[in-house]
Amino acid sequence: MPAKDRLFGRLALNHPIILAPMANASTPALVAAVSNEGGLGSIGAARLAPDAITTAIREVRAKTNRLFAVNLFAPLPVIVDAAKIETARRLLEPYYREVGLDEVPAPPVKPPYCFDDQLSAVLDEKPPVVSFTFNLLPVDAMRRVRASGAMTIGTATNVAEARALEEAGVDAIVAQGGEAGGHRGTFIGPFEDSLIGLMALIPVIAGAVRVPVIAAGGIMDGRGIRAALGLGASAAQIGTAFLGCPENSAVNPVYRANVLDAADKPTTIVRVYSGRYARMIRNRYVTEMSAHEASLPAYPVMGALTQPFMQAAA
Amino acid sequence: MPAKDRLFGRLALNHPIILAPMANASTPALVAAVSNEGGLGSIGAARLAPDAITTAIREVRAKTNRLFAVNLFAPLPVIVDAAKIETARRLLEPYYREVGLDEVPAPPVKPPYCFDDQLSAVLDEKPPVVSFTFNLLPVDAMRRVRASGAMTIGTATNVAEARALEEAGVDAIVAQGGEAGGHRGTFIGPFEDSLIGLMALIPVIAGAVRVPVIAAGGIMDGRGIRAALGLGASAAQIGTAFLGCPENSAVNPVYRANVLDAADKPTTIVRVYSGRYARMIRNRYVTEMSAHEASLPAYPVMGALTQPFMQAAA
Repeated sequence: MPAKDRLFGRLALNHPIILAPMANASTPALVAAVSNEGGLGSIGAARLAPDAITTAIREVRAKTNRLFAVNLFAPLPVIVDAAKIETARRLLEPYYREVGLDEVPAPPVKPPYCFDDQLSAVLDEKPPVVSFTFNLLPVDAMRRVRASGAMTIGTATNVAEARALEEAGVDAIVAQGGEAGGHRGTFIGPFEDSLIGLMALIPVIAGAVRVPVIAAGGIMDGRGIRAALGLGASAAQIGTAFLGCPENSAVNPVYRANVLDAADKPTTIVRVYSGRYARMIRNRYVTEMSAHEASLPAYPVMGALTQPFMQAAA
Repeated sequence: MPAKDRLFGRLALNHPIILAPMANASTPALVAAVSNEGGLGSIGAARLAPDAITTAIREVRAKTNRLFAVNLFAPLPVIVDAAKIETARRLLEPYYREVGLDEVPAPPVKPPYCFDDQLSAVLDEKPPVVSFTFNLLPVDAMRRVRASGAMTIGTATNVAEARALEEAGVDAIVAQGGEAGGHRGTFIGPFEDSLIGLMALIPVIAGAVRVPVIAAGGIMDGRGIRAALGLGASAAQIGTAFLGCPENSAVNPVYRANVLDAADKPTTIVRVYSGRYARMIRNRYVTEMSAHEASLPAYPVMGALTQPFMQAAA
């Protein structure tokens, strides 16, 4: 059976559309709406506490009987570099003051949630699909997900990653083009070498693996979906184009307006929010902080330092 | 008339295919073969001496009665930074020795050819199409090209550049995706902010200008051409996929084999050859020299320093 039919069969898709797991914007209402229309909604659970993950999954289940995915960030080593943490704290201070916050988080700085606790919260709810990015899942985590019966979807930005994911046993692979907004998924090689546009990335990944390929990045309408399918993808994962939906209109209206207005504005890839490279719209914070990028802690430590500021700024 | 029909009419195309102007690889024989088959061949004249440009155009004309393009690099300011030149000379020395050359070119370092002389050589032959990249043409150069009766094609990597080119009066615009091999055409904003994949770039440029848009970057076969047209392009400019043609088999067989074998190998964008950022396959020189990128002269000075080495290494 061709990869496309396998994907459609397993995900019960009527349309080759997967909602990207956007933190904040992929609300349970939007996830359920996409699934109810015959696409696949995805909960962006990576920055949710375990109990919030439980709540989100239950909210989706209350609104749809169809399949949906839950997305997590695969864990990465936590590197505590005291000097970089102090540099970041000093640089962040004026921004914290500007939004009326007292203090940048002080050491010991640690990620807000433990991956294993997040994964347990996910699997306790037995979701039909678990997707992930940033890395392979640790072997034991992969085993737990598969044992739960969930279908697994990993994220690749180059051919080596796609092959590694297939080897690890995923059921489908998101090919994340250089166009994609948000975090880069690269885990083999430097991220700069894997900013590969979908025009080049889809055919090489679809030619290198047997599992279905889902194209992600810069797909805004039917033209993009048709282009992705024609290049060898089985479906398209779409984020930004869903930002204008009524199902997430209550969330972050300033951010929505900013992104929706930005179709032809330059974006840039920096690691000044979470510590991991992500494509975003330039603002004053991005421009000023990226000048110090080499002196800032890595993900997830940097993310722990910026989280209160990001919440307040939002 | 839709943009696509205008382009087909003016270029007398039977197929929506334009041969990319590749230095060395877009030989007169290949240019003529593509035009004879109903595409548009392009002579990569940017690094040719004026008399070599004359010869190349006449060779193409001897082999085809159909239309073809001649491509130049729009001129950029020449910045002579003595310290950077000395740094580059010192760093280049061991590579020169390795390929059996005596000496890195000494100051005064200047570009091998003057743009105005190149343009005069081009226009004396009255080619049907003049295409360019790196910038807008200077106003007087643009006037000379249009007065010659040639159709003009400029290169854009973002919407602002596409609008500026249309304003300057070009007849068509190459939308160069971040996927593209070779030099980046960016002239408004830093190049890093305009590594936009074609999936996102074609629709926004096609939506922003009225002239026909030609998609370039990572298009390797009919799937890519169909995807580009579906996204709003009127034709596809293709380079790498033509490297395996018999019409250029005598040129640089090692380079050809290297590129043709590299479909799924990581590429990188560095400015260690010409001084201007270009996407290329990693090799030892690229990796070692890019560590010193900030200390190297800009294009075209760096190109003048590396030219003898590049020729010998090829």
